[in-house]
Amino acid sequence: MESWKRKLRMGMVGGGQGAFIGGVHRIAATLDQQIEVVAGCFSRHPENTRITGAELYLDANRCYNSYAEMAAAEAVLPENERIDFVSIVTPNISHFEIAKTFLEAGFHVVCDKPMTYSLDEAEALVKLVEDSGLVFALTHNYTGHPLVRHARALFAEGSMGQIRKGIVEYLQDFLMVPHKKLGQKQAAWRVDPAQSGIGGTMGDVGTHCVNLLEYVTGDPISELCADKSTFLPDRVLDEDVNALLRFKGGGKGVLSISQVATGEENGLGAVP
Amino acid sequence: MESWKRKLRMGMVGGGQGAFIGGVHRIAATLDQQIEVVAGCFSRHPENTRITGAELYLDANRCYNSYAEMAAAEAVLPENERIDFVSIVTPNISHFEIAKTFLEAGFHVVCDKPMTYSLDEAEALVKLVEDSGLVFALTHNYTGHPLVRHARALFAEGSMGQIRKGIVEYLQDFLMVPHKKLGQKQAAWRVDPAQSGIGGTMGDVGTHCVNLLEYVTGDPISELCADKSTFLPDRVLDEDVNALLRFKGGGKGVLSISQVATGEENGLGAVP
Amino acid sequence: MESWKRKLRMGMVGGGQGAFIGGVHRIAATLDQQIEVVAGCFSRHPENTRITGAELYLDANRCYNSYAEMAAAEAVLPENERIDFVSIVTPNISHFEIAKTFLEAGFHVVCDKPMTYSLDEAEALVKLVEDSGLVFALTHNYTGHPLVRHARALFAEGSMGQIRKGIVEYLQDFLMVPHKKLGQKQAAWRVDPAQSGIGGTMGDVGTHCVNLLEYVTGDPISELCADKSTFLPDRVLDEDVNALLRFKGGGKGVLSISQVATGEENGLGAVP
Amino acid sequence: MESWKRKLRMGMVGGGQGAFIGGVHRIAATLDQQIEVVAGCFSRHPENTRITGAELYLDANRCYNSYAEMAAAEAVLPENERIDFVSIVTPNISHFEIAKTFLEAGFHVVCDKPMTYSLDEAEALVKLVEDSGLVFALTHNYTGHPLVRHARALFAEGSMGQIRKGIVEYLQDFLMVPHKKLGQKQAAWRVDPAQSGIGGTMGDVGTHCVNLLEYVTGDPISELCADKSTFLPDRVLDEDVNALLRFKGGGKGVLSISQVATGEENGLGAVP
Repeated sequence: MESWKRKLRMGMVGGGQGAFIGGVHRIAATLDQQIEVVAGCFSRHPENTRITGAELYLDANRCYNSYAEMAAAEAVLPENERIDFVSIVTPNISHFEIAKTFLEAGFHVVCDKPMTYSLDEAEALVKLVEDSGLVFALTHNYTGHPLVRHARALFAEGSMGQIRKGIVEYLQDFLMVPHKKLGQKQAAWRVDPAQSGIGGTMGDVGTHCVNLLEYVTGDPISELCADKSTFLPDRVLDEDVNALLRFKGGGKGVLSISQVATGEENGLGAVP
Repeated sequence: MESWKRKLRMGMVGGGQGAFIGGVHRIAATLDQQIEVVAGCFSRHPENTRITGAELYLDANRCYNSYAEMAAAEAVLPENERIDFVSIVTPNISHFEIAKTFLEAGFHVVCDKPMTYSLDEAEALVKLVEDSGLVFALTHNYTGHPLVRHARALFAEGSMGQIRKGIVEYLQDFLMVPHKKLGQKQAAWRVDPAQSGIGGTMGDVGTHCVNLLEYVTGDPISELCADKSTFLPDRVLDEDVNALLRFKGGGKGVLSISQVATGEENGLGAVP
Repeated sequence: MESWKRKLRMGMVGGGQGAFIGGVHRIAATLDQQIEVVAGCFSRHPENTRITGAELYLDANRCYNSYAEMAAAEAVLPENERIDFVSIVTPNISHFEIAKTFLEAGFHVVCDKPMTYSLDEAEALVKLVEDSGLVFALTHNYTGHPLVRHARALFAEGSMGQIRKGIVEYLQDFLMVPHKKLGQKQAAWRVDPAQSGIGGTMGDVGTHCVNLLEYVTGDPISELCADKSTFLPDRVLDEDVNALLRFKGGGKGVLSISQVATGEENGLGAVP
Repeated sequence: MESWKRKLRMGMVGGGQGAFIGGVHRIAATLDQQIEVVAGCFSRHPENTRITGAELYLDANRCYNSYAEMAAAEAVLPENERIDFVSIVTPNISHFEIAKTFLEAGFHVVCDKPMTYSLDEAEALVKLVEDSGLVFALTHNYTGHPLVRHARALFAEGSMGQIRKGIVEYLQDFLMVPHKKLGQKQAAWRVDPAQSGIGGTMGDVGTHCVNLLEYVTGDPISELCADKSTFLPDRVLDEDVNALLRFKGGGKGVLSISQVATGEENGLGAVP
């Protein structure tokens, strides 16, 4: 098979200058020498894409002004040049459209969480993926940690018994001051419902919590009662959520997350 | 003043052989050489009281068969012999009656938490204390820790700002197996509503959590939504509680406590 | 046996106002209700002894102006009043003479480390104790910790194998500034060879290190090469010691101790 | 400048299948997308080089049978193809010859520590580098950690005062059982003086310790007294070293390292 004789070729949408997570995804994707970045549309601003592409030493012809142009152009490149898959690291609102565009152009997709802006989009995307026969991967990255895998294996083999209590916390403080003061791109879109969707902190870090609990225990959350809060005057989305959880297997739990918890940088922890 | 020329004389109700917390209270009370234990009714079983008193080298005449007998007898001893105060370390149901008895006999009272079995009793006790002019102290012991005092001072002076989020946890596992298997006196009464009252884990360790949060922040809990659970088949009281909290000042929080959290010995923590 | 019907009666030499370790020894001795402090000569200054004795509510007649007076007076008290043993918590230079005095007066002795000011004194003391038939206990207190006992048991039963390497550190900083500036009694005598003997830091905390290593492993240090340092201009005794160790069983090790290691409060650790 | 328009091209000597540190160097070199691996001689065994090169998707023509062949062949490739520098991750004995070969062929060199097999070689290499005008970098990787940089800055600006004591430890246990039992390539050459040189543990992890102490404090070690030990019967090089240190500035210290310290994986720590 040809693909075993070369690195996989990755394109990226998002992750330009001023972005937070795109560079992290590039490092993670390439560090074991199995993937190379060859194309990208790193920003809605062509100049940003051009500069970011140059920093990555990409061919200028493969730094695209829009993701639609990128999907179309890559699809007609020779098979031994074009990207194998796209990595999507844009604000939540655009996940669905970008994923759809690349799937329809015949490319596998790696998409950052949360999957889509709304449940309707998520269901439509599932159907698209099934019809395409292509791979769609969601980067719930914590599931790759050896300790998480080991914990999951212990639950799966039954050696952890039945779950009585699960506690999961994810505390950050990077939204604790008005984002306009920060002038950070990654803060600005996260607090804007038009780009982030209805889930603020819940979509941003709560997804990791729910994913971890369910992935490790194999026991899905069946009921919840949540108290969502917005503290800063210029905010409309939740910045802080506390929730009571009930697991399908009869256990109980709490989820407590925040992006306005002063003094906390990136504190993820769980006690299932 | 005479009392400055001698140690305070303490009597104890509860804390006999097989009890858990009585010995801890004796250590804490006497370690700075300001208090001596001189009398007690350490158990409902006179033989237990006799043995415990002997281990403490008490005068056998001051090891009483009942707390009522103790209050009456001590009250008529000469002023330079009789106890100054009583320390109550019995199951919750008896706190009110014992405290009432000693207050009416003219003695100051140090009582372990929770204060009483019911709210009615608590309100009656407040009135009794006010009328008596005597001291009634509840042993919310964590408030004595220097770090807790310092945290409280930081909140009081305003340097911690306004509270957005408070998290408090207290996880134990000593009730994780059926208490009959354990044969522990302290487990047996805690799970018996007739001795413990309506509060299981909430009364036992939840009180410390609520006390700590409110003591440190100075901001009382104004609303809550709790999910109380009982996992073991032979139990009627809550063994595990998760609660969403709202503080009067507008902050939010979670409380998560358990006495069936396997692997946890005595894990108290708070992030206000 | 009469002694089981009452608390042991302890006298103390040293531990007056301004002293550091005497109060700690009183707490440790009395916290399980088996010992009571009944007499003392807490300082070379009678006024200090008087005040300290009053704070402990001692009979003024049993607060003595000198340890010699104390030994003589206690020896002629009725058997049901006089002390059972003396606890010595004075500067190193006086350990031998005080211990000798009380042994000769017929009292058991608990003495703080290091045992004596010199090896000659130590050997003379061993002989005195043997001839007296009395108990002489040296307070190497760390050997009482459950983890230390467990570690020792693991070595004794052979489950730790043969020792290859032992590392022990004890870092403090309380002598890091000139002691005259501190005005602390406990700093002043420790840096004075006339009161402390030839061992500065080595005698003060190094003894704990050597004791711990040998107690836990059961393998005595057979050779050593040490680098003793004095950093402050007004000091003559060692403030800091590093040593290469060789154990009788063939293992190697290092000892590193200091009382001028800025930022370290009382950092004792060992990896045998 | 042409080099800013493309990734740097790296060749590697060593780091084939069964090696330990080569893969780590490849990850570290490439993770920020500024370097690509394009050539290598990964082993003395051509088959190993061929397989390793294929796993990295290298051009088979640039997987060389010997480092000499590699240096010669790369030197005559067009400027826009040939490597910019070589990364040497072989056993210690070969560092000098490989570095010399590539420097003489005109290539910059990144070499793993320790620099050479002997002091004579090290001095010869310094001269070679000076004459060549090329870059020679030694991978004392811990100096790249932000905390280490910050500590160094604090010492450099004088805010840490004068050094009284420095403690550095590096404890491993991967040589604790006879290496023939392990069948590990990386263990085998480390205990073989013909490949590792005269420095066993001292050359392997002691170099990191000395480098860290001197790099952070800016104060070189001027005197030392070391106790080198070999515990396993089949070993000739040191497996464990304890040393007393004296710094040029008057401070004292200890170094304690081991590769036979059971239970320790990779425990590097320092308290300057």
